[in-house]
Amino acid sequence: MAIKNTLFLQALKGETVERPPVWMMRQAGRYLPEFMELKKKYDFFTRCQTPELASEITVQPIRRFGMDAAILFSDILVIPQAMAIEVEMKPNFGPYLPNPIRSQKDLDRVIVPDVHESLGYVLDAIKMTKVKLQDEVPLIGFAGSPWTILCYCVQGQGSKTFDKAKEFCFTQPLVAHGLLQKITDTTIAYLKAKVAAGVNAVQVFDSWGGMLSPEDYNEFSWPYIQQIVDALKNEAPVIVFGKGCWFALKTMSQSGAAALGVDWTCSAQNARYLSGGNITLQGNFDPTRLFSPPAEIKKMVTKMIRDFGKDRYIVNLGHGILPTVPVENAKAFIDAVKSYSE
Amino acid sequence: MAIKNTLFLQALKGETVERPPVWMMRQAGRYLPEFMELKKKYDFFTRCQTPELASEITVQPIRRFGMDAAILFSDILVIPQAMAIEVEMKPNFGPYLPNPIRSQKDLDRVIVPDVHESLGYVLDAIKMTKVKLQDEVPLIGFAGSPWTILCYCVQGQGSKTFDKAKEFCFTQPLVAHGLLQKITDTTIAYLKAKVAAGVNAVQVFDSWGGMLSPEDYNEFSWPYIQQIVDALKNEAPVIVFGKGCWFALKTMSQSGAAALGVDWTCSAQNARYLSGGNITLQGNFDPTRLFSPPAEIKKMVTKMIRDFGKDRYIVNLGHGILPTVPVENAKAFIDAVKSYSE
Repeated sequence: MAIKNTLFLQALKGETVERPPVWMMRQAGRYLPEFMELKKKYDFFTRCQTPELASEITVQPIRRFGMDAAILFSDILVIPQAMAIEVEMKPNFGPYLPNPIRSQKDLDRVIVPDVHESLGYVLDAIKMTKVKLQDEVPLIGFAGSPWTILCYCVQGQGSKTFDKAKEFCFTQPLVAHGLLQKITDTTIAYLKAKVAAGVNAVQVFDSWGGMLSPEDYNEFSWPYIQQIVDALKNEAPVIVFGKGCWFALKTMSQSGAAALGVDWTCSAQNARYLSGGNITLQGNFDPTRLFSPPAEIKKMVTKMIRDFGKDRYIVNLGHGILPTVPVENAKAFIDAVKSYSE
Repeated sequence: MAIKNTLFLQALKGETVERPPVWMMRQAGRYLPEFMELKKKYDFFTRCQTPELASEITVQPIRRFGMDAAILFSDILVIPQAMAIEVEMKPNFGPYLPNPIRSQKDLDRVIVPDVHESLGYVLDAIKMTKVKLQDEVPLIGFAGSPWTILCYCVQGQGSKTFDKAKEFCFTQPLVAHGLLQKITDTTIAYLKAKVAAGVNAVQVFDSWGGMLSPEDYNEFSWPYIQQIVDALKNEAPVIVFGKGCWFALKTMSQSGAAALGVDWTCSAQNARYLSGGNITLQGNFDPTRLFSPPAEIKKMVTKMIRDFGKDRYIVNLGHGILPTVPVENAKAFIDAVKSYSE
């Protein structure tokens, strides 16, 4: 059946729209009281791995705010987990990988799994979400970029600098490329399975690409994202979001991706210039700017749409929404887009 | 007396040099065994506040590697400390400010101190360092940017997002500007006193400027750095380093600063283009690239000098050196510059 609200898919095709579509990275999450209710009862991986819960969490923000796209509740670290790398989610700490990959021997025990087997729960969650959404809005599936996944696999936890991950790449480049290729192969199979299960678009999150120099980015991050875009672009529109990756926007714009995410340090003007002016852009409201009073948020969102232009543009944050943002402020953000007129 | 090695000061003036000068941010620090010896015996603020120790630590890397400039061992957080904001340095945690500034009432207890009184130990350390350096190389003094100092004063500790600091600015902008102005006034008096005590150049570190959107940067960070440059530029050359602040390079280049620091995500070509092509640039080797084998480091440094050009260029890292870098790798970095010829 056709999706009723086509704004998001039209923007991805570069079509003229009445107003730009809007969704928010991490829109299903901790700032929502209805999410916190479920969080009290079920731990992180239970929420990810139980299709009833993941699909419920996915549609919660759509019910409350009516965004123009849903994004499946999941985590980028389900990929290393499926690759036989142990991943824990520690409260008040974040991801913890007790056996990080630091050598060829470590890499040898990493598998490229059958995603239908090890990640079947994600595919079930997609099917269940599609039923709940009743084709009202499109559903986005996502994965981390291979470089970003490597960061966690090697560092073993979050980090301000991912120094151990970078040291690994710079001292053992062949092992690093071996790991990146295994992650890429898994990710391609995973995203293809997601599309087959019903997602209408996919987004690749290169959260830590901006920690690399342009040269190192071109060695350790970009080629693997390009492989993913090549493999997916004929099956679904691909959005590439690289936090801090302003320097790669030109390369990204020539990749076959349908849209590029940008963060708030890259102005609309710079983003349009650096990406060549023709590709759909997505972003880039500073998530901490959602702490501003709602009236101010509405003004800033309207200005942001004027700066990017209403076409070839998807309104979003420049990174995930923060858990401490008041619900009424998130609502002001969404409402400002929905009431936008030229 | 005149400084014998003039490379650094020549580069700041834009003069033609045989090879570019080199120093490393945090060159006096934890990667050096002789520093670790002192660290075992004296805690962080003892090292900062004891002129004998601070001056000894400052000259340690010069003795070992012969950089073209020394930078006084100190910390950007001596400023809030002098402003009556309590600062602790917790081992394996970093800075901790038990009474962060979150309201007008908190701001009211913040003072603009007499820097000769409260920071006299820094001035004494400068005088002692000048004696030890015997005019072999110039000495750099530094301060954090007011925005970066505010980040710590409000957040109360380091952070990946400085969300509380940003929330404070966006919900209480008047109080934020009041704090920023007090920090600026203190910093100007502090840097002027440093110049009077003998430093040959000053650097302002805007370590967290890159967390702001260009518009917020122009509201909460840049105007205060400009005040500092205006107040100092006729007394000593000013270097402005904003990590992640590629978007502000044009503004910075027109500020009266003698040189601009850039990080490794901004290529030499982009940095020259964005800064207008005439101002001296400083940077931008990725500190984690010092984990590469020494032979590779030398190749990369040579390429970096070719990319920036030998004139109007100061070789440096793109951020502080990491504590885990092998000493021989730091040496390879310095040696590559000192043996550079066209």
